[in-house]
Amino acid sequence: MRAYRLHETHAGLQLQLHDVPQPEPGPGQLLVRVRAAGLNRGELIAGHGALPAAGSAARPVGGEAAGEVVALGAGVDGWRIGDRVMGRCSGAFADFVRIESYEAMAVPPQFDWPQAGAVPLVFMVVYDMLVMQGQLRAGETVLVAGVTSGVGVGALQAAKAIGAKVIGTSGSAAKLERLKTEGLDVGIHTRGPDFVDAVLQATEGRGADLAIDAVGGSVFAACLRALAYEGRLAMVGYVDGQLRAELDLATLHTKRLRVFGVSNKLRTPQQRAEQVSAFKRDWLPLFQSGRLRPRVDRVVPFDRLDEARAGMEAGEHVGKIVLAGSADA
Amino acid sequence: MRAYRLHETHAGLQLQLHDVPQPEPGPGQLLVRVRAAGLNRGELIAGHGALPAAGSAARPVGGEAAGEVVALGAGVDGWRIGDRVMGRCSGAFADFVRIESYEAMAVPPQFDWPQAGAVPLVFMVVYDMLVMQGQLRAGETVLVAGVTSGVGVGALQAAKAIGAKVIGTSGSAAKLERLKTEGLDVGIHTRGPDFVDAVLQATEGRGADLAIDAVGGSVFAACLRALAYEGRLAMVGYVDGQLRAELDLATLHTKRLRVFGVSNKLRTPQQRAEQVSAFKRDWLPLFQSGRLRPRVDRVVPFDRLDEARAGMEAGEHVGKIVLAGSADA
Repeated sequence: MRAYRLHETHAGLQLQLHDVPQPEPGPGQLLVRVRAAGLNRGELIAGHGALPAAGSAARPVGGEAAGEVVALGAGVDGWRIGDRVMGRCSGAFADFVRIESYEAMAVPPQFDWPQAGAVPLVFMVVYDMLVMQGQLRAGETVLVAGVTSGVGVGALQAAKAIGAKVIGTSGSAAKLERLKTEGLDVGIHTRGPDFVDAVLQATEGRGADLAIDAVGGSVFAACLRALAYEGRLAMVGYVDGQLRAELDLATLHTKRLRVFGVSNKLRTPQQRAEQVSAFKRDWLPLFQSGRLRPRVDRVVPFDRLDEARAGMEAGEHVGKIVLAGSADA
Repeated sequence: MRAYRLHETHAGLQLQLHDVPQPEPGPGQLLVRVRAAGLNRGELIAGHGALPAAGSAARPVGGEAAGEVVALGAGVDGWRIGDRVMGRCSGAFADFVRIESYEAMAVPPQFDWPQAGAVPLVFMVVYDMLVMQGQLRAGETVLVAGVTSGVGVGALQAAKAIGAKVIGTSGSAAKLERLKTEGLDVGIHTRGPDFVDAVLQATEGRGADLAIDAVGGSVFAACLRALAYEGRLAMVGYVDGQLRAELDLATLHTKRLRVFGVSNKLRTPQQRAEQVSAFKRDWLPLFQSGRLRPRVDRVVPFDRLDEARAGMEAGEHVGKIVLAGSADA
């Protein structure tokens, strides 16, 4: 089968398509024919996360997939050959991929493959930051700094489904305009941290109950200042490459603020299984009923991953870029 | 009656004893004859919290008291004249003080007045940071940076009662030695942030599950580095006067850390009532059974508040300094 690998070269990180043996499902795993796989900055763009360390070998790439189950590993319960599934995994940019059965979720009937391939990573992260850690409630206000990214748009959609008001920032006025259709209540056009006054104005001086920093250190202090009493701040990414920020301890202390990190890199299988299980209970029904639906910006054919990656780096998208189509599609 | 007031003068903040009318209990309040009142840095030492703003009038001082109920305001239910109570309040350094009935707690029978006067503020803060926000569980490890302060010792005692292991730092080896009797597992003698290696060593490389920064910005980054995966950091005070710190966002993000502020300054009456109610349910029984007992460093007579305050500023104490004895005691 064909599979992409991420290589470290003198010219930087490169994606190469290889011919590799089709994998066998191990105990507890599903083998899935990949029909769609979402792209994520974390593993594709230098400086943003899980890239291979210097000198490491070429490695599988693609952190989420949707497709049909073609084989079951030992001990798998609850899934059958032919089931349409979606889930987090490793090596989704390939014709086939193994998905741990505890990561797999049934694809909602009305979803096409690209929609299904756009769900697992973004919405699992968003579920973590809005529900598990952020404890967002209906009627609260969410500030999303960097609202046009995959995670930003997912946070917007899910926060609206929960019944919150959403304020989003972006360097592009045109992109903010496009997000009105997803329910964006207030769009703030800015590239930097100068959004605090606008947030206070939009909340009658209260500030946001939950702020999501999907930009990085350059806007962290502003996110903190834009918080209401007992507000929470989710640190979820650093597209700006700024990994440090100054923290105002007196404000954190007096206003009882909470700052937390959202990442799945070091989670144990049990922690992942518990998260997926809670997600299935709380949010899968929202996808099934149509209240929650991923925003797919564009679908790129399987053999044009480089093009899709360049599009992501150029940052023209609003929502997810999805690779779709398998070897024989 | 006699009551202390905090005055802003050209020479700094000063405490003066006044003759003032005895207060009447308002609706929902208890009038209490003060038998003991704990001292707290926040309201007595410049640069640490709730001090009057420049130009403000003299104001009542003393944030916690223990004594007998001598009068009941309208609508008070569940308390009777003569009951021994302890609670947070405003103006405890006086012969009589009003305590909101939702703040009042019954004094455990075996407690003398100084012990009772040392409970409300420290243990309510400690309950907030260990239980309400910190979610400490038996078997976890707590790092207390600044373990000899009132809050530090309270955190040590309560963490031991919960079944956690406690590592504490102090600039005084002698004070650390004295805290062995309170169950301190590991004492680290340091005045600065150079305790990270020692914490990692004491936890087999894991790090602490909960760190309490009762020192301030000078040790904040070290507290963060000393945390285990999914560790929590409680920011509770800044004796060092450093109100800012650098935050390592990448570590916060990848290790899913949580940083939170512990302060009651802006809490609403309802939030305070809920906290006291949870405290009575969870911790008052621990005081009653003797598993939890405040550590009183010294008792100072009512008319020597200046001396008590100087002792606090000199920092020779380990645990609480309590003012005790009323006008006719």
